[in-house]
Amino acid sequence: MTTIAEKFKALATDNAPGQEARQGAGDTEGLMRGERLSGEPVDFSHGDVDAFTPPPDALGAFLEGVGQGGQQAYTEYRGTLDIRQRVAGHLARFTGAPVDAEAGMILTPGTQGALFLAMAATVAAGDKVAIVQPDYFANRKLAAFLGGTICPVRLDYMAGQSAGLDLNDLRAVFEAGARVLVFSNPNNPTGAVYSREEIAAIAGLASEFGAAVIVDQLYSRLSYEGTEYTHLRAGQIGADQVITIIGPSKTESLSGYRLGVAFGAPAVIARMEKLQAIVSLRAAGYNQAVFNTWFEEPQGWMSERIRVHQAIRDDLLSVFKQAGMSVRTPQAGSYLFPELPSLSVEPQDFVRLLRLQAHVIVTPGSEFGPDTASSIRLNFSQDHAAAVGAAHRIVEMVRRYAD
Amino acid sequence: MTTIAEKFKALATDNAPGQEARQGAGDTEGLMRGERLSGEPVDFSHGDVDAFTPPPDALGAFLEGVGQGGQQAYTEYRGTLDIRQRVAGHLARFTGAPVDAEAGMILTPGTQGALFLAMAATVAAGDKVAIVQPDYFANRKLAAFLGGTICPVRLDYMAGQSAGLDLNDLRAVFEAGARVLVFSNPNNPTGAVYSREEIAAIAGLASEFGAAVIVDQLYSRLSYEGTEYTHLRAGQIGADQVITIIGPSKTESLSGYRLGVAFGAPAVIARMEKLQAIVSLRAAGYNQAVFNTWFEEPQGWMSERIRVHQAIRDDLLSVFKQAGMSVRTPQAGSYLFPELPSLSVEPQDFVRLLRLQAHVIVTPGSEFGPDTASSIRLNFSQDHAAAVGAAHRIVEMVRRYAD
Repeated sequence: MTTIAEKFKALATDNAPGQEARQGAGDTEGLMRGERLSGEPVDFSHGDVDAFTPPPDALGAFLEGVGQGGQQAYTEYRGTLDIRQRVAGHLARFTGAPVDAEAGMILTPGTQGALFLAMAATVAAGDKVAIVQPDYFANRKLAAFLGGTICPVRLDYMAGQSAGLDLNDLRAVFEAGARVLVFSNPNNPTGAVYSREEIAAIAGLASEFGAAVIVDQLYSRLSYEGTEYTHLRAGQIGADQVITIIGPSKTESLSGYRLGVAFGAPAVIARMEKLQAIVSLRAAGYNQAVFNTWFEEPQGWMSERIRVHQAIRDDLLSVFKQAGMSVRTPQAGSYLFPELPSLSVEPQDFVRLLRLQAHVIVTPGSEFGPDTASSIRLNFSQDHAAAVGAAHRIVEMVRRYAD
Repeated sequence: MTTIAEKFKALATDNAPGQEARQGAGDTEGLMRGERLSGEPVDFSHGDVDAFTPPPDALGAFLEGVGQGGQQAYTEYRGTLDIRQRVAGHLARFTGAPVDAEAGMILTPGTQGALFLAMAATVAAGDKVAIVQPDYFANRKLAAFLGGTICPVRLDYMAGQSAGLDLNDLRAVFEAGARVLVFSNPNNPTGAVYSREEIAAIAGLASEFGAAVIVDQLYSRLSYEGTEYTHLRAGQIGADQVITIIGPSKTESLSGYRLGVAFGAPAVIARMEKLQAIVSLRAAGYNQAVFNTWFEEPQGWMSERIRVHQAIRDDLLSVFKQAGMSVRTPQAGSYLFPELPSLSVEPQDFVRLLRLQAHVIVTPGSEFGPDTASSIRLNFSQDHAAAVGAAHRIVEMVRRYAD
């Protein structure tokens, strides 16, 4: 039996985004070469909701929720039915397949809440879980916390047009007994979008082996020019095999309200609600009302948001590429995942040096898988000029610490 | 190994408070004796925040949180330090022992979130957990979900002045290997408050066996005339052995914001934060700002709230006692737990009949432990007249279905 101390040892969060305030400076100062770099501090660990503000109606919807009083304070654990129905209509149109607001959907405290519930509803101790590498760090941590065994599936994200999923790996882990696959699309941290062929292959293999697939589509609305986005749930796979997760925290800048949604397989959703009843009861009642504005942003709001992010993406790509750094062009979302060249300091120390010396916070690549320790993740949903300035400082720091 | 299906089978929520909307009428209509009873519907499964509204400054504090923008949207996982410091000061005064805002406190999505994290941070699969019976239903469900073995400790709540904890049971379960005790004070569902001697005995036994104690004090501010309330954490027990949980959802009617706090043993709090990072990230950022009004209600606000609840309590007690029903006088909180006499229908059916025929929703006693199936729990934080009317209808229903 695993003791509780062992169980938590694997659950390190010191390098998780947003937790940098809890890191001491340690011996990092002793490694410093040259002076500090001046420039506007940028925290690339998450998007800047001051630079990209929420849609105009969000707060008004919240206040309407407060005005509803008790009925909106104490909703069903899976959320208010009216709101689920409204959101289900939007998600059916967005994903191209029906959504059952009654039995096949749950509102959660953020997409993190949805991901936790979905994995806890499908993974028991001893189960094998297919996890893409690199992918969102919580996928691995959740699988480990639930006592699952991680079966890695490589993503060769620098290879070409497709996201680069190793389908031989996926078949092998299913053959080895994995019956749950979890992945993000677009991929976090690389911004790779799975091609139509890759999604079809995932659907085919999951069908062949009867596996459940949890797909985190958190960033799927922020899809750039020329990107074809394929929704797994609209493909050749049983509706009872897929849970799709999405929420308005990122593209829509509504993170401060902690809202997410999971939809799909009714049997899994039913388990998720049972678990939510003892984990957090429900997404905050008044906050649920903010969902009433989702997918109903003013005309042109979303296309403008995409256009501006694409411009930041292109400028950062050009800064890193001109410095000779290897980086994939993200097709959706606001993450960039450049690879650092060989440095005279360890990547973890370089990340700390970036913070202390260059006023730039990034997330170390080691959070996303064992093979990407020399990469860094940037959420480029930031003030455009500040982000470009910070990218130049990263390049200057790479130059200073070059091996 | 437990399969995922087995794990969720034990996690029934159909009779959980707030979930009545998901129950069908089933065959209950066929059991009905006589006509429906008229009267204002009352949902005793939770407090009525329309009858008892939040303190006046809560929404303003939320709006200030929104105004803070990104820094309040993306807080540390354990919550904003400023807010923790402010709340820690209040909680230190309230509980009579120091609170470490930096290392010994975490803000959570409701006290349910705090309870989940505290139990998940102390109970591993195979661990024995001391659980009071009757007590809050989630305690048992959480222990079971985490793979713990429940070791019951009886609460003879009808016995006398003290809460009635069976200290022989408690010693026996510690001797049998339990190293975690979880209990609510005041006890949910009975409103019993543990005496100074009982709290001292719990502290003594926990110290002797090196056990961790999680005490849910959610309702401890709503303490009636003549009640002496003893805070475990201020007693003769190691500060590293106690986690105290409280929040503003009940007495303060702030449930719609989903806020709770856990404080105490830094090692446990650290684990709880690691887990929160993959479960829900944080209590909703903007909502955290509402904590700035907590324990700072206007002069007289809390004493008036207590006075009015005590008046409802006394009227309901008198209705049930005049009908010959057995019920303990709650010393704190807004729960009443009367015992039903012998009926011609099963208690679960009686609860459904109450809903269909008498427009009264209560929570069946079976949710709180195996020995209290013939009791019902009422949250009497309701409109006074409506609550008294509903209590009369319960008595009339008891008469109709008497054995």
